Amino acid sequence: MRIIVDAMGSDACPAPDVEGAVLAAREYGDIEITLVGEQSALETELRKHNTLGLQIDILHSDSAVTMEDKPSEVLRTKPDSSMATGLNLVKEGRGDAFITAGNTGAVLAFATLQTLKRMEGVLRPTFPAVIPIPGGNFILADGGGNADCRPEWLVQFGVMCTAYARRVLKKPNPTVALLSNGEEEGKGNELIRKTAVLMEASPLHYIGNIEPKDALRGGADIVIADGLLGNVFLKTLESMATMMFDLLREQLKADTRSKIGGALARPAFRRVYMQVDPFEYGGAPLLGVNGVVIVGHGRSNAKAIKNAINQGRLAAENDILGAIREGMAAVNPTP
Amino acid sequence: MRIIVDAMGSDACPAPDVEGAVLAAREYGDIEITLVGEQSALETELRKHNTLGLQIDILHSDSAVTMEDKPSEVLRTKPDSSMATGLNLVKEGRGDAFITAGNTGAVLAFATLQTLKRMEGVLRPTFPAVIPIPGGNFILADGGGNADCRPEWLVQFGVMCTAYARRVLKKPNPTVALLSNGEEEGKGNELIRKTAVLMEASPLHYIGNIEPKDALRGGADIVIADGLLGNVFLKTLESMATMMFDLLREQLKADTRSKIGGALARPAFRRVYMQVDPFEYGGAPLLGVNGVVIVGHGRSNAKAIKNAINQGRLAAENDILGAIREGMAAVNPTP
Repeated sequence: MRIIVDAMGSDACPAPDVEGAVLAAREYGDIEITLVGEQSALETELRKHNTLGLQIDILHSDSAVTMEDKPSEVLRTKPDSSMATGLNLVKEGRGDAFITAGNTGAVLAFATLQTLKRMEGVLRPTFPAVIPIPGGNFILADGGGNADCRPEWLVQFGVMCTAYARRVLKKPNPTVALLSNGEEEGKGNELIRKTAVLMEASPLHYIGNIEPKDALRGGADIVIADGLLGNVFLKTLESMATMMFDLLREQLKADTRSKIGGALARPAFRRVYMQVDPFEYGGAPLLGVNGVVIVGHGRSNAKAIKNAINQGRLAAENDILGAIREGMAAVNPTP
Repeated sequence: MRIIVDAMGSDACPAPDVEGAVLAAREYGDIEITLVGEQSALETELRKHNTLGLQIDILHSDSAVTMEDKPSEVLRTKPDSSMATGLNLVKEGRGDAFITAGNTGAVLAFATLQTLKRMEGVLRPTFPAVIPIPGGNFILADGGGNADCRPEWLVQFGVMCTAYARRVLKKPNPTVALLSNGEEEGKGNELIRKTAVLMEASPLHYIGNIEPKDALRGGADIVIADGLLGNVFLKTLESMATMMFDLLREQLKADTRSKIGGALARPAFRRVYMQVDPFEYGGAPLLGVNGVVIVGHGRSNAKAIKNAINQGRLAAENDILGAIREGMAAVNPTP
């Protein structure tokens, strides 16, 4: 199996991207890795590591997509980028999965419009987030790409996430819920009520509406929402956690007693942080295109890149695309 | 000025409700308070406090609304409740504001359908939340009553919250933003984009879209969203904060070192909690009905009830209803 890694993706590229690839090649002996990016920079970076016996090669690309690039323009302006080059390798069957910590909008544009394209029967690809919670995780889709959604799209998001949860996260019978302002049937907006009817009729393991507090307690393996609601939910979780850590840090510096207490309790804080560590899962899959794509956070470190590579490896090895195709056939009306 | 307090509202009623009224009567010498509820229970409770010189009287009511009562049924089943009785006093001009920590859905039903009714020109009343953040607060509307909204309703929510922010929270020129998945113009869903056009044309101090992280940093005085998005935002803030405090508490008990650190840092934790204390503002106003109504959380303690009474006092004293009427005239097309 060959994994294609965009080495020009992360904010601090290429260092974490290359190191993550080295760590992955060491840990998962069965994979070959192609790093795509500026040849000499990647060679310099690779020389910093012991790569003896690892199957890592480099494919040169002339340019790189930055976080500032507009997704609507990259197709035209950066066709020779590491991102486009890497996705093309997967499209041509010369790679089994593509990993990047680069500009999410640009990946979506290149993958859905230019290279891999939408899978047959998929109305909208989705870019879910895997959210760490104490003792586990849940998948949230849509993470933001599709602000306005139709009920059928949400059901398809459920199908694709179910395939991902089964094949990659090893949850044999994942539960699916609709994010809402109340658990009771009839709560939510019109979109949620219409989607619930379709969910009930689908083969998904649908368990009804879920409120934020129950989602955080692991009440469902898969939480479905339109991209606006899902994105605001996701960003609220992140920014509330950040705010709380910031407030704590500030107050633990306020006086000597707090400083001593804070120093003693540091391992406890560390354990709290580990339970909501955004880098634990490395990246999020782009589901609904003809290829395996995992997109990591721009702030990814080497560990996050390694974990993203592992997600891509598991997705390819366990034929996530076949699982999605099967799931789609069960919910889409035969033409 | 006379404030009507539903003494059968809070989860632990009537103790915190009565004590809150006593505290308020003591602190704000200019108010008279009528406690509505079960006469003998309230007399017993009042006798526990020194009420010398305070203007507090009791109005008996035969029943009380509970948290389990369905809002759709209370109009029929509990017309003699402390809630209905209290609202009627305000309707008849025998009280200037009504305060309750009772069943929110029931207050909405009694106030909008049976007693005070919608103000002329108001399309939908709204029940915003005042959210404490470090160094201040912001108002979020809609808090949940109106899951599906139209653009004109959202603009009206902005108008009513602007009046409340000016007259009660003493913010002379409050900024209004739309909660969204990105700051840039064009982000958000169709509702947000349509509302933005109306906001731009309104006399509101509209500043565009706002993301959760900037809302938490105090980026806008008033954050507007449909009731589904607003409610999920609100509940996510609450449940993430709760989860973080729970995780901390758990980890600070894990070993001796953490226990000592935690004990020393307790005042620092307390200061963090104070900055996001949900009881600081006591309650949330029901805006858009013909009367001042403040609804507190069911878990309100005496301090929260006292603060809710103060909010009602300020709203009545500063003619919030007049301010809303004026604001409405400026955004509603003349018939």
